[in-house]
Amino acid sequence: MTEKGQDFTHFNEAGRAKMVDVSKKPVTERKAIAEGKVYTSAETINRIQEAKIKKGDVLGVAQIAGIMNAKKTSDIIPMCHPLNLTGVDLDFEINDEDSYIRIVAEVKISSQTGVEMEALTAVSTAALTIYDMCKAVDKGMEIGEIRLLKKTGGQSGDFVREID
Amino acid sequence: MTEKGQDFTHFNEAGRAKMVDVSKKPVTERKAIAEGKVYTSAETINRIQEAKIKKGDVLGVAQIAGIMNAKKTSDIIPMCHPLNLTGVDLDFEINDEDSYIRIVAEVKISSQTGVEMEALTAVSTAALTIYDMCKAVDKGMEIGEIRLLKKTGGQSGDFVREID
Amino acid sequence: MTEKGQDFTHFNEAGRAKMVDVSKKPVTERKAIAEGKVYTSAETINRIQEAKIKKGDVLGVAQIAGIMNAKKTSDIIPMCHPLNLTGVDLDFEINDEDSYIRIVAEVKISSQTGVEMEALTAVSTAALTIYDMCKAVDKGMEIGEIRLLKKTGGQSGDFVREID
Amino acid sequence: MTEKGQDFTHFNEAGRAKMVDVSKKPVTERKAIAEGKVYTSAETINRIQEAKIKKGDVLGVAQIAGIMNAKKTSDIIPMCHPLNLTGVDLDFEINDEDSYIRIVAEVKISSQTGVEMEALTAVSTAALTIYDMCKAVDKGMEIGEIRLLKKTGGQSGDFVREID
Amino acid sequence: MTEKGQDFTHFNEAGRAKMVDVSKKPVTERKAIAEGKVYTSAETINRIQEAKIKKGDVLGVAQIAGIMNAKKTSDIIPMCHPLNLTGVDLDFEINDEDSYIRIVAEVKISSQTGVEMEALTAVSTAALTIYDMCKAVDKGMEIGEIRLLKKTGGQSGDFVREID
Amino acid sequence: MTEKGQDFTHFNEAGRAKMVDVSKKPVTERKAIAEGKVYTSAETINRIQEAKIKKGDVLGVAQIAGIMNAKKTSDIIPMCHPLNLTGVDLDFEINDEDSYIRIVAEVKISSQTGVEMEALTAVSTAALTIYDMCKAVDKGMEIGEIRLLKKTGGQSGDFVREID
Repeated sequence: MTEKGQDFTHFNEAGRAKMVDVSKKPVTERKAIAEGKVYTSAETINRIQEAKIKKGDVLGVAQIAGIMNAKKTSDIIPMCHPLNLTGVDLDFEINDEDSYIRIVAEVKISSQTGVEMEALTAVSTAALTIYDMCKAVDKGMEIGEIRLLKKTGGQSGDFVREID
Repeated sequence: MTEKGQDFTHFNEAGRAKMVDVSKKPVTERKAIAEGKVYTSAETINRIQEAKIKKGDVLGVAQIAGIMNAKKTSDIIPMCHPLNLTGVDLDFEINDEDSYIRIVAEVKISSQTGVEMEALTAVSTAALTIYDMCKAVDKGMEIGEIRLLKKTGGQSGDFVREID
Repeated sequence: MTEKGQDFTHFNEAGRAKMVDVSKKPVTERKAIAEGKVYTSAETINRIQEAKIKKGDVLGVAQIAGIMNAKKTSDIIPMCHPLNLTGVDLDFEINDEDSYIRIVAEVKISSQTGVEMEALTAVSTAALTIYDMCKAVDKGMEIGEIRLLKKTGGQSGDFVREID
Repeated sequence: MTEKGQDFTHFNEAGRAKMVDVSKKPVTERKAIAEGKVYTSAETINRIQEAKIKKGDVLGVAQIAGIMNAKKTSDIIPMCHPLNLTGVDLDFEINDEDSYIRIVAEVKISSQTGVEMEALTAVSTAALTIYDMCKAVDKGMEIGEIRLLKKTGGQSGDFVREID
Repeated sequence: MTEKGQDFTHFNEAGRAKMVDVSKKPVTERKAIAEGKVYTSAETINRIQEAKIKKGDVLGVAQIAGIMNAKKTSDIIPMCHPLNLTGVDLDFEINDEDSYIRIVAEVKISSQTGVEMEALTAVSTAALTIYDMCKAVDKGMEIGEIRLLKKTGGQSGDFVREID
Repeated sequence: MTEKGQDFTHFNEAGRAKMVDVSKKPVTERKAIAEGKVYTSAETINRIQEAKIKKGDVLGVAQIAGIMNAKKTSDIIPMCHPLNLTGVDLDFEINDEDSYIRIVAEVKISSQTGVEMEALTAVSTAALTIYDMCKAVDKGMEIGEIRLLKKTGGQSGDFVREID
């Protein structure tokens, strides 16, 4: 999936990081979808599910974190362009069998550059928030498989990850 | 590794998220170490290594991102306490054989609460930055195995992850 | 003034907060005006007026706070869209008789979504700043009547508050 | 409740705003409690209560906003000291009869200066968030009666508001 | 180079600072270039040059700081408009003879207002970062000659500084 | 004024920037004073002085910017430690003869590390703000002579700049 012949675009001639010039690119409707997983113990998964109604919605806090951090991606990732996102939503799927929570984030914009970093940042920070909310009861958690699922609307063509 | 009998500490009686009251806890010297990996294509790994000298140090940008975001963890993770970190450093190991970059972050503080979220945030945002710097040439990258390695200095005792 | 039949737009199907998708809405010129009041003791009102020339302009600091926070509304209010405001101004009226300061904020933008939250945030944070600047001499202050006065340019029609 | 003889402490000799020097004050345990109200239509109050279980917890989002903004009070209010809060919690009471939501915020710290602005900022931004979440169905809402209820631990003595 | 007859545009009729209303101005392609210098001892200049390869690239860190702060200019400078920059790059020239580092920043945007403050902020914060990285070995450094070199694309005509 | 034998402390063994570990340093009372100048046309100096009473206090806005940015120095300068400043004040001197405004900032803290970067950031951002407020009438301005004047309380001894 590596594109040969192309080079890192984020460095200038002196070999220092720059914010890529997108001023000549057209404004288009763009969307990106990313996913990630938080692996916990079986007991933690149970607690998250039980807690939702009576004690507190861990995933509700994670969703807000994901949205708020998607908005400040350009402050978190050094070379990202500041962007006015037009929509952000997250979805969580709990897998009881393998004891993990799958996070999917979708981000939309009308812009000269794409929003995959925003979708990935939403997923990563939602995952970290789940970790934070549960770490008092489970220090063995692990965050993994954070990756881009789909990206549409850019000049370089759409991207759809082949499910392995 | 789940602690039975204990409950989510981040919710109040109404079932809403709160910032845990640590005002009665003693100030102690604390340290946390976390790790994570960015899986890329073999070609991307080569480019990162070749680029370092002549074209630009991807990992140098990632390291700065990790440090800057460790400092603003309380702005990224909703229930984290604001903390005055006394030291942050990251280390990167490139694994040619399996085509991944391992990131390790170490964070120190003298405080009433620990810094595992700061170490995990440093790792996650450094990983996202590597992704951002390389995404023009490799969209198949994946971030994974983000987890706590070690945590010392807190009241609840030290934590050391058993290597699997 | 409640619109029947419509539902909260800020939740997704799982009942979790989302940033509403405005990507299909047209870009229009929008404006919002909001107001609020800070009730103080008569003596504090006098001090604020006297201080202006010789000792320091409390309202000048409040105005700057209002503008700076209007700009970061999307960082303060979780589900607000990031927006590039094109103009922000505030006005203060001191009412000697009833010992209060009325704050009015006007915000402009050309965007797919409105700026009422930006105007309300400008008013609220200007009010909090007045409180902060005066709290050493008057702890009995109260902030109130923060509300939208006018909103124009959106698809859902204009809003003008009827004066009670 | 105005303290005579004392002057605005937030201005220097040139009449410009300064951050008050607290470097000689002792570190003490401090706490502040503030309150505020959001007045809505009766229908909106009903919707908030009904929505909680099935459709989305407006007050849960508001609580997170209150906590996150309490943490960044020094970035919102120009002359506030940066502080490492040790605990923040909010409470919401719905008054069906008079159609309002009462917000109470409690903030704790061990510091050279107090946290009343942090408690007031938590209340104000939680109120603004309720407004934002409900504004699609009710534009007539009003935020009011934001005020300090209690403040303990400072050198200038405790403050307890007399209920009117 | 002062324009007679024109007045400060950043104050309203009450004499308080406002964010200038640019809502009627056309969106145009704009660019600004600014420069500045960091004067150090001869030995510090040598160290910076030697360190680059083996020990650490001071200017690489400064460049990232310049870019990240250009993006948040509207948060740093009170009356600046929030803007979605489309490109930022910096260049550093080391002058051995006179022991200084010259910083040049170029910022691009398509907007209703210009980006000279963004270019100047990039230069200033890059200069401060060089100072920070070198201050353990050289406390006599000085930052100077921060100024606008060129500005194009605005309605008020282009600006090119005459070299003195 | 360069200290021989010492090396850049901000790089780790891999040659990447780190946040220096100050966890073993004692907490001491520290203070730093920095200065800088904004050179304008004679007419601009006049306008700033005339405007103060009737039209708007340019330096009042600059002072607030200086204080607010001193507080977020660790967010602006990549390797700076987050710190809880205990006092910040600025002073402005207008020099009619040579048409410049001299800015002096003083910052205090009780901490394991010093605040010279905070004082320098206050001066730099106050200077940029003066530039922003006046740029509509004077594009020839220049910011210069930003430097540390005094630094006390640290382990490495006090620093006082010799006036040239």
